[in-house]
Amino acid sequence: MELQLPAVQCSSQRKPPSPCPHPVVYCSHSQPNRLVAGNASPDVLQQIKAFPALQPARALRDTGIAAVLLMDAQIDHTTGLLMLREHRQKLPLYCHTLVREDLSTGNPLFKVLEHYCGIDWQELHLQKTFQVPSLSGLEFEALPLISNAPPYSPHRDKPQPGDNIGLSVKDQTSGKTLFYAPGLAQIEPHVWKAMQEADCVMVDGTLWTDDEMISLGASKKTSRAMGHMPQSGAEGMIEWLDKLPAHVRKVLIHINNTNPILDEISPQRQTLTAHGIEVAFDGMEIEL
Amino acid sequence: MELQLPAVQCSSQRKPPSPCPHPVVYCSHSQPNRLVAGNASPDVLQQIKAFPALQPARALRDTGIAAVLLMDAQIDHTTGLLMLREHRQKLPLYCHTLVREDLSTGNPLFKVLEHYCGIDWQELHLQKTFQVPSLSGLEFEALPLISNAPPYSPHRDKPQPGDNIGLSVKDQTSGKTLFYAPGLAQIEPHVWKAMQEADCVMVDGTLWTDDEMISLGASKKTSRAMGHMPQSGAEGMIEWLDKLPAHVRKVLIHINNTNPILDEISPQRQTLTAHGIEVAFDGMEIEL
Repeated sequence: MELQLPAVQCSSQRKPPSPCPHPVVYCSHSQPNRLVAGNASPDVLQQIKAFPALQPARALRDTGIAAVLLMDAQIDHTTGLLMLREHRQKLPLYCHTLVREDLSTGNPLFKVLEHYCGIDWQELHLQKTFQVPSLSGLEFEALPLISNAPPYSPHRDKPQPGDNIGLSVKDQTSGKTLFYAPGLAQIEPHVWKAMQEADCVMVDGTLWTDDEMISLGASKKTSRAMGHMPQSGAEGMIEWLDKLPAHVRKVLIHINNTNPILDEISPQRQTLTAHGIEVAFDGMEIEL
Repeated sequence: MELQLPAVQCSSQRKPPSPCPHPVVYCSHSQPNRLVAGNASPDVLQQIKAFPALQPARALRDTGIAAVLLMDAQIDHTTGLLMLREHRQKLPLYCHTLVREDLSTGNPLFKVLEHYCGIDWQELHLQKTFQVPSLSGLEFEALPLISNAPPYSPHRDKPQPGDNIGLSVKDQTSGKTLFYAPGLAQIEPHVWKAMQEADCVMVDGTLWTDDEMISLGASKKTSRAMGHMPQSGAEGMIEWLDKLPAHVRKVLIHINNTNPILDEISPQRQTLTAHGIEVAFDGMEIEL
């Protein structure tokens, strides 16, 4: 299994990630042109341009995206669906029924897309393994997470299982497993189990401190209230990641542009490095 | 008046424009941080990053965007509004009432944004000059155009005045005028008058031939049926632009990625050059 965070900047240098999360692409070696994008961020077209495997050019308006898997119904994770509207057939989209509901009512992308390629919805059931057709060799499992639904959801501030998920992806050949969760406010026992069983965890790196947005005057909510466990402090992400087995690769994703870890020479970044925690960047590649 | 097509690629080389249209920014010299973005394309955040005047950084989450003016309700011209949702106050947005209707029903961005910054809607009346507060010295006028409403509009294929507009922008100090129309299927007498009176026209450069998308198997519609006058052929854009006074600067925008003029050494591009017609590119600057 190969994971890519496609670059959206045409620089050969390593760049810190943009504030918007990027889709993680699960790529099977035997099927280099059959990929799954995790979430659909607004800059998905730049990602397709920047990542050759996402544009096999077998036909006009072709992409290598076999399916999109949504973790939630947030704007930054779903707006890219509009950019994929010229897909040659219905776009295979995996998400929980609550996410589909939010995307059919409060922010009705499903309805808008009916005027274009349309959506081939595949229901994501919690804690049941599944495969994506045409992408054999990878086994997926959606895990419910405590985070928050978007402001246009009837469940905003009243989280329900399925509003937010994390994803376990197992390569059936190598036996290696990825755990992916861009939004993660609490680590419940079933999540902790999945993290411990993974070979690589890519988890919520939104904010450094719990009051980061409050102290900047950008929000009245703490990081945890917004659905994101901060890295620092008691019961923070660093404390959790420290408890993982030593062989587990630890990567933070979904970094907010206020987070000091984006600065490679910041003391906060050095703290992460000392704890063996990486920060994702545009163009990052991980092989499992 | 200064016009910018902010670069979305971090290259110092001239690049052809992306298939997505970019906002044109009208910038008054005396007010360098008070700008108006024409349309809000999905990559508006990259544009803000790439163009210093769009990020004056007077405060957190500040932008230099004084207002957004929408030409129509198309996805590629409006999705960027979602990316501006963290604006510190309601986002000043000028559009026709029919566009507002499409963006409140078929693709209800107005409703989605109510959960974030909200929209301070300013109605665009056709063929009446107006000014944008906090941006003195520029006079705007919206002109109805024959093009097409988006697929989610009740007026799709039944154009009504206001579904699509062109914009005249006059610098009251220099007296110079821009005419801007990213979607233009027919040049009616009032549009032709505005084009003749302009010092620079930035007009629809979507497709080279009327059957371009049909011959590629990408659509069953001609260019004109999609609301875009092709460049070549009888009554095409080149013929029209040839009739303009010699001093008028002629720039094509909104270029589709199938259009051969994107290739700088193509015969089609050479034809344009021979006719004194420019092709817009990321990072282009025009001073009037």
